[in-house]
Amino acid sequence: MPKISRKAVQMPASPIRKLVPYAEAAKAKGVTIYHLNIGQPDIETPEVMLEAVRNFNSKVVEYSHSAGIESYRKKLAKYYHTHGIEVNHEQILITCGGSEAIEIAMMTCLNNGDEILIPEPFYANYNGFSCQADVLVKPIKSVIENGFALPPIAEFEKYITPKTKAIMICNPGNPTGYLYSREELESLKTLALKYDLYIFADEVYREFCYDGAKYTSVMHLEGADNNIILLDSISKRYSACGARIGALITKNKEVMQAALKFAQARLSPPTFGQVGAEAAIDTPQSYFDKVKEEYTARRNFVIEALNRMPGVFCPMPKGAFYCIARLPIDDADKFCQWLLESFNYQNQTVMLAPASGFYSSPDSGKNEVRIAYVLNLESLKNAMICLEKALLEYNKQK
Amino acid sequence: MPKISRKAVQMPASPIRKLVPYAEAAKAKGVTIYHLNIGQPDIETPEVMLEAVRNFNSKVVEYSHSAGIESYRKKLAKYYHTHGIEVNHEQILITCGGSEAIEIAMMTCLNNGDEILIPEPFYANYNGFSCQADVLVKPIKSVIENGFALPPIAEFEKYITPKTKAIMICNPGNPTGYLYSREELESLKTLALKYDLYIFADEVYREFCYDGAKYTSVMHLEGADNNIILLDSISKRYSACGARIGALITKNKEVMQAALKFAQARLSPPTFGQVGAEAAIDTPQSYFDKVKEEYTARRNFVIEALNRMPGVFCPMPKGAFYCIARLPIDDADKFCQWLLESFNYQNQTVMLAPASGFYSSPDSGKNEVRIAYVLNLESLKNAMICLEKALLEYNKQK
Repeated sequence: MPKISRKAVQMPASPIRKLVPYAEAAKAKGVTIYHLNIGQPDIETPEVMLEAVRNFNSKVVEYSHSAGIESYRKKLAKYYHTHGIEVNHEQILITCGGSEAIEIAMMTCLNNGDEILIPEPFYANYNGFSCQADVLVKPIKSVIENGFALPPIAEFEKYITPKTKAIMICNPGNPTGYLYSREELESLKTLALKYDLYIFADEVYREFCYDGAKYTSVMHLEGADNNIILLDSISKRYSACGARIGALITKNKEVMQAALKFAQARLSPPTFGQVGAEAAIDTPQSYFDKVKEEYTARRNFVIEALNRMPGVFCPMPKGAFYCIARLPIDDADKFCQWLLESFNYQNQTVMLAPASGFYSSPDSGKNEVRIAYVLNLESLKNAMICLEKALLEYNKQK
Repeated sequence: MPKISRKAVQMPASPIRKLVPYAEAAKAKGVTIYHLNIGQPDIETPEVMLEAVRNFNSKVVEYSHSAGIESYRKKLAKYYHTHGIEVNHEQILITCGGSEAIEIAMMTCLNNGDEILIPEPFYANYNGFSCQADVLVKPIKSVIENGFALPPIAEFEKYITPKTKAIMICNPGNPTGYLYSREELESLKTLALKYDLYIFADEVYREFCYDGAKYTSVMHLEGADNNIILLDSISKRYSACGARIGALITKNKEVMQAALKFAQARLSPPTFGQVGAEAAIDTPQSYFDKVKEEYTARRNFVIEALNRMPGVFCPMPKGAFYCIARLPIDDADKFCQWLLESFNYQNQTVMLAPASGFYSSPDSGKNEVRIAYVLNLESLKNAMICLEKALLEYNKQK
């Protein structure tokens, strides 16, 4: 029997994957599970997007341009303009979700064995994409005490070697909900210019900034156009995760030309999703206002509920729809499994993502979980009651 | 300015990419171009598929299961059953087009620096995917004289080294139109078992076999389940290239489990495309009968027209919708450019794919072109008139 590749062996499994059988078993027993473990929002996709897909009237579902439908890219450039991001359609490559944007960026910019600095905790799949690209992740630790602010630049510099080629950030942050300030981003830019590094910025949550906080894009920074690669997706913006439409955006012509070769090899991004995404740009502001209001209420409720529980600490996130909470437990992996396997309160329980999956340093985040507040307030209330009861019971039985 | 990766430099550009500016210039001058250069069929997508997408009635466009919607995979297993391929839904991983199936297969099965044997000429993007995976293509030459039959097994054995991990075939073949016989496939299987190699079989054209020829899948072969990876796509079957729905199919559990990790990292295949693809399985047989009749007529016309031209030789393909023709010219790259740049007949010209792009051995296929007979008969007639006139004029001016 032929062997699988070393990469396939090393490829990390999804951090919640091992919990899935326990969740299925709990469900089979009739237990209601509140899924706070994934970023699949319950928010409705804008009608204008669904309507466009329903009105698809070509007779043939053709390949689009490898870089994406031109009219979509032109309209998308206008969307970015409303966020102070000045790009033209030739600086935009449409991808199959944000995932493919990251994959193409890594293949285009990094050699096998190159190193990428990522503030930790970070979106777990960055580990997977780095493994695919044979790139080494060097995590730079951010801490829960200050809400996971950008680590000091001196910390980054400690890890810079001749192999370091890029810094990756997620802003607003998954899993932390942290929103980088202009000053933090300027300091990253200075670092990138000093060491000739790319900045990969995953900004898929830009619509989700709270308390009037101002979102700064890496594309707002000046004088580093050749270093900056913006990675985007419509998944969260329009609650359209399944459309699989993302984008790689850069003013670096050499990078864009090379990225296009990878895009041509896979022919084209999905046509139906692009048709929907193009229409979705007309989503009225009232949609986003309502969504933001809803998430603000959910966030306020969840963070307050968490911090009221004895021994729990959760900083207030300024963006995205996640938070990382420190719980009074020994091991979040064990606790999250126990929640599904051995606990229920009035036949309900809660599924959380152990934060260990968002760290690449061993033994980090052991008493932390990521909570996605993607359910309605009623469900969140029940979920928080479950969690509070569970913490009491978990610690009593020891 | 940071450097792009070595891989990005080496990544081959699409073989017709360099012709595109000439095509655009010709179009700007008002010249009609018959596009025989790409596999984008003009055949209509089945109504049942389009209707399903138009009737999409979820309120949220959610991620699907990373391996694809379960009901789709179950129905797809039944579709394969009608082709004598016995698999269950857990042996099927839905991908973003056949392209992603190939990418995942390579990452899962091959290490950096491993070698893959591919009968040449082959689908140009195999070069790109191999480059992405740091895999070395070892082309095994097939020849136009016997219609690009499988090269003798002794030829394959000559190239086998400890680094050889897989054989890749396309059956029915793009770009050759060749349909492998059961005997040819059995001999490949014996070879794969002898040297412990994977067989990657791209069978996206199985619906396009002519003259009553019998299609044999690698999945029909016995005793090599762990070696065989079937790579599929609905792009050609339902003329739905833009849906971006493919599949990786294997009975090798270790490969499937590892492939799933790559699939989980990119979250899910496109939801709209899967909804369409699931419905498309109900496409009536009459659709395929009509399509096959149409392609048979196109093929018969094109091959006969080509072979009637002085100095042209084109073997009769048994499948897919391509043929490779040998032309009485010095250099097909130059000729194809000249067709767009300097030639027109009654304000019409033809765009062909130089065959050099389908070879990985240098200087191969220099006087060959690939012709995709994906236009209606009327257009094909005009295209063949143009080509005949062009050959006369091209050779006269020298």
